[in-house]
Amino acid sequence: MPRTSGIEFASPEDTSRAFYEAFEHGNVAAMMGVWADDDEIFCIHPGGPRNVGPDAVRGSWEEIFTGSSRLRFQLEQQMFFVGASLAIQSVFEYLQVNDETKLRGPAIATNIFTRTTSGWRMLAHHAAVSPTAEAPPAASRVGRLH
Amino acid sequence: MPRTSGIEFASPEDTSRAFYEAFEHGNVAAMMGVWADDDEIFCIHPGGPRNVGPDAVRGSWEEIFTGSSRLRFQLEQQMFFVGASLAIQSVFEYLQVNDETKLRGPAIATNIFTRTTSGWRMLAHHAAVSPTAEAPPAASRVGRLH
Repeated sequence: MPRTSGIEFASPEDTSRAFYEAFEHGNVAAMMGVWADDDEIFCIHPGGPRNVGPDAVRGSWEEIFTGSSRLRFQLEQQMFFVGASLAIQSVFEYLQVNDETKLRGPAIATNIFTRTTSGWRMLAHHAAVSPTAEAPPAASRVGRLH
Repeated sequence: MPRTSGIEFASPEDTSRAFYEAFEHGNVAAMMGVWADDDEIFCIHPGGPRNVGPDAVRGSWEEIFTGSSRLRFQLEQQMFFVGASLAIQSVFEYLQVNDETKLRGPAIATNIFTRTTSGWRMLAHHAAVSPTAEAPPAASRVGRLH
């Protein structure tokens, strides 16, 4: 079984969208299809260790996706920096879990993308709990990412 | 007064070295000379907010440098990804404060560099508290970064 799917993402924004969709759906195969097929990919969940390489990254998602909660992300204050071969997204992640009316978060994420022969893929995800000076968005505003 | 110094860093590694030296010396001018002269630079200290732009980034360092502690970094498990215009460093930061024999940390940092007409500069610093499965390095091993 290939470690990554055959989907080619034309831009880092497309890859990011697929990343958060796979996260919302708790779909490990779709999630790993978003990542580069590279031994140095790394993934840091809030308060967690640095998971390096496809096996560790996959294991971290399998652990997160164990529950059956319905997740819905609301992304705020995005910044993108796109180079020829690397791109960076800085974004606040608010999370609606099941039917909770109060959004959880935010986490602040630094997502890094690399342009491969198979399009743009995730190279790294670094998320951390973040304070916010703003009032969190109302859950009623939570919609699809796209 | 220019917001950035005239030093040109030939590589992201050089910029990183200057970043941690300025951090150790608590030198705001040297620190800001490491950053890109760009309104979208951002800096996230462990557990803190996202500081965006030169004024907010400078303010965050002024706050950190208020104390008179002697700081010494020990960097572990570095990974570098260098593109044409962007580069990424992932690194564990252990910190010796004054003469403490036990190192603090680690924090896990994602540092992002951008190649400007004035050489490689910091675009972003995202640090977060991190657990580690390893025993922390002994303080006696703490040396200069270079």
